[in-house]
Amino acid sequence: MTPAADAYVVGVGMTPFGRHLERSLADLASTAVRAALADADLDAADVGAVMAANAVQGAIEGQHGIRGQLMLRDLPFGRVPVVNVENACASASTALHLAVAYVAAGAADVVLALGAEKMVTPDKERALAAFHGSWDTAASERTLAGLAAFGAGTPPPSGVEEQAGHSVFMDVYAAFAREHMARHASTREQFAAVAAKNHAHSVHNPLAQYRTSFTVEEVLAGRPVAWPLTLPMCSPVSDGAAAAVVCSPAVARRIGRGRAVRVRASVLAHGGSWDGQDPAEHVSRQTAARLWERAGLGPSDVHVAEVHDATAVGEVQQVEHLGLVPPGEGGRAAQRGETALGGRIPVNPSGGLESRGHPIGATGLAQVHELVTQLRGEAGARQVEGARIAVAENGGGLIGLEEAAVAMTVLEAS
Amino acid sequence: MTPAADAYVVGVGMTPFGRHLERSLADLASTAVRAALADADLDAADVGAVMAANAVQGAIEGQHGIRGQLMLRDLPFGRVPVVNVENACASASTALHLAVAYVAAGAADVVLALGAEKMVTPDKERALAAFHGSWDTAASERTLAGLAAFGAGTPPPSGVEEQAGHSVFMDVYAAFAREHMARHASTREQFAAVAAKNHAHSVHNPLAQYRTSFTVEEVLAGRPVAWPLTLPMCSPVSDGAAAAVVCSPAVARRIGRGRAVRVRASVLAHGGSWDGQDPAEHVSRQTAARLWERAGLGPSDVHVAEVHDATAVGEVQQVEHLGLVPPGEGGRAAQRGETALGGRIPVNPSGGLESRGHPIGATGLAQVHELVTQLRGEAGARQVEGARIAVAENGGGLIGLEEAAVAMTVLEAS
Repeated sequence: MTPAADAYVVGVGMTPFGRHLERSLADLASTAVRAALADADLDAADVGAVMAANAVQGAIEGQHGIRGQLMLRDLPFGRVPVVNVENACASASTALHLAVAYVAAGAADVVLALGAEKMVTPDKERALAAFHGSWDTAASERTLAGLAAFGAGTPPPSGVEEQAGHSVFMDVYAAFAREHMARHASTREQFAAVAAKNHAHSVHNPLAQYRTSFTVEEVLAGRPVAWPLTLPMCSPVSDGAAAAVVCSPAVARRIGRGRAVRVRASVLAHGGSWDGQDPAEHVSRQTAARLWERAGLGPSDVHVAEVHDATAVGEVQQVEHLGLVPPGEGGRAAQRGETALGGRIPVNPSGGLESRGHPIGATGLAQVHELVTQLRGEAGARQVEGARIAVAENGGGLIGLEEAAVAMTVLEAS
Repeated sequence: MTPAADAYVVGVGMTPFGRHLERSLADLASTAVRAALADADLDAADVGAVMAANAVQGAIEGQHGIRGQLMLRDLPFGRVPVVNVENACASASTALHLAVAYVAAGAADVVLALGAEKMVTPDKERALAAFHGSWDTAASERTLAGLAAFGAGTPPPSGVEEQAGHSVFMDVYAAFAREHMARHASTREQFAAVAAKNHAHSVHNPLAQYRTSFTVEEVLAGRPVAWPLTLPMCSPVSDGAAAAVVCSPAVARRIGRGRAVRVRASVLAHGGSWDGQDPAEHVSRQTAARLWERAGLGPSDVHVAEVHDATAVGEVQQVEHLGLVPPGEGGRAAQRGETALGGRIPVNPSGGLESRGHPIGATGLAQVHELVTQLRGEAGARQVEGARIAVAENGGGLIGLEEAAVAMTVLEAS
């Protein structure tokens, strides 16, 4: 499940996330790549292979093939392999996972992992279709049927109005939230505390889509999306690109200049067939167990985390699956300030998907960008003091009630 | 460019290629996977990761995400990584390349490479759009502008009528053919000899889409597509799936039963920026040079080849790039019978893309299926006697006048 040999991240780069109607995908991608190469003090000619992630350009722009080659055609990469990778919202972490494996295989000394996505379009229907096109009709129907029962424990109060035309994924997360409320006596206020924390973090992140803080009360008063979720608890539609330069230990020693970050474990898994009854059987829980085993570490060793808060309840679930907080305590930990900057285990210092933004195929590498910045001590006002070990969790798609792709990464300062 | 450690193919499986309107992509994919696992005498539970290739399901069926997970959801693969891979017509070879790297990295002992594609649809416009969606408009315009000059050497005779509504790729290959004719004094009859040979081969392949032989005269009298190409010189629209089980040397020793085939080299490259003037600079020529270096072999060591004859001129170009015949001699070699079964170096014993069929994302693994069958001595009436070394070449997409992805593989009998 994880490459046997070490690999290091020696450069990261990303565009600001947000609305970039006037910029092409190639423009966003090459901006992130140039920044990552400059950060590593390498040239395009030093790169031995490219793993390029994108999820929705086919749906939105009709570009179904060789997206990486087209995104990067103005960069002098020579004849190196370019592999186009997709794993829904976990696409960019999948590109990182392959880059680590490719280096571990000795197939190249330096591999570029790239994630780029352009989702903002004047045609909102098309953007929504891109989301919904991410699973087939039969799978979608099974999931929604499962969710109807799953989220039944805590029904919405009568008279709640919801925003029309939102992504079906928000219905899925709403059902997850209601299930969590029923199982753990968690509350809307706890989900709001997660969102308020992440929006407060992003005030200090110049690359974030939003940089506005919200109180818990303001989050609760936000436009209803799907009960109990309000708009500030949900990730937005975003454009952006992020890249990481992955290399062998020998190259890292030569060029790392003390800024190389070690990949202690990179674990990828796929889900499906969970009946929703026992969280211990969930693919994310099981994948986290493998992650800690491969890393030779446990959740108590972690100083900072980025997790997949496509909605606030996503963060609640994932900090529990990772073992960063006890089962059922994800929301209460946010209320107590444990997962905020300055707390016991800061989660999503970048602002997370909710506030940094969520250009689907780029998100996993934006997480890595944030964690590498933290582990180098270069995160400025949002720095987690003394951060040496970091974990990223990035999930994609759904089959039944499970994530279709789960990617988790443990990074260590060198 | 190629993994440093060895990997072996211990199982192959594929569906018949052809028109499967009544079968789903999942049905085709799982049929090929079950066949490959049975061939390896392994269970799904033995597989440590899946590299799943598909090129056009987004364009044709609107399924843009997690295609591999959905194709395989009825197979008991556990939580293993599933990576969705795309590289246009070289998608399946890219999946194989990643499988080899993943094994070489020690990330898994057994990796499944899968390619599956469903292109036949009652809506022919949609199938064509899937082809044309494979590159962006700007790249397409640059390519066609380049081709206008490129293929000008040997213009079509006046009065030639061409089939309307064919893929732009056929215009590209027609320009390649005219350039080859101008540069090497090659002829339509030579391209027809390639097509006649491949159709004759496929008569002996029960998995081929067509099993009808054509004389050179019949090929020349076929419906004109884009001068000098006629319909029997062009690959059809096809459905199908193919899979290979890749494993480490240790697993191959344990379960190979003498039928394991060694991957001596797996090379992937991307092209672009060739000005069309010097074939020695072409990405395929340069990639072949690296292939032979990595394999520690040369073209004269090869007993059988499968190359990317999306049209007959594709085979002519690629046997020259690979060094299997001298520059300019690809067509004449077919006329002399050198590349036919029983000849000096049989090429496309399966029938090739022209006759076995070309379900885009499956083609590269269909080539591997054929070569593994040949190296095991199990190819029946189309067996190349004594075949010990085989080469596959699979190209995808176009940027400017070059292939966007070139994958080449050298396989060796154990």
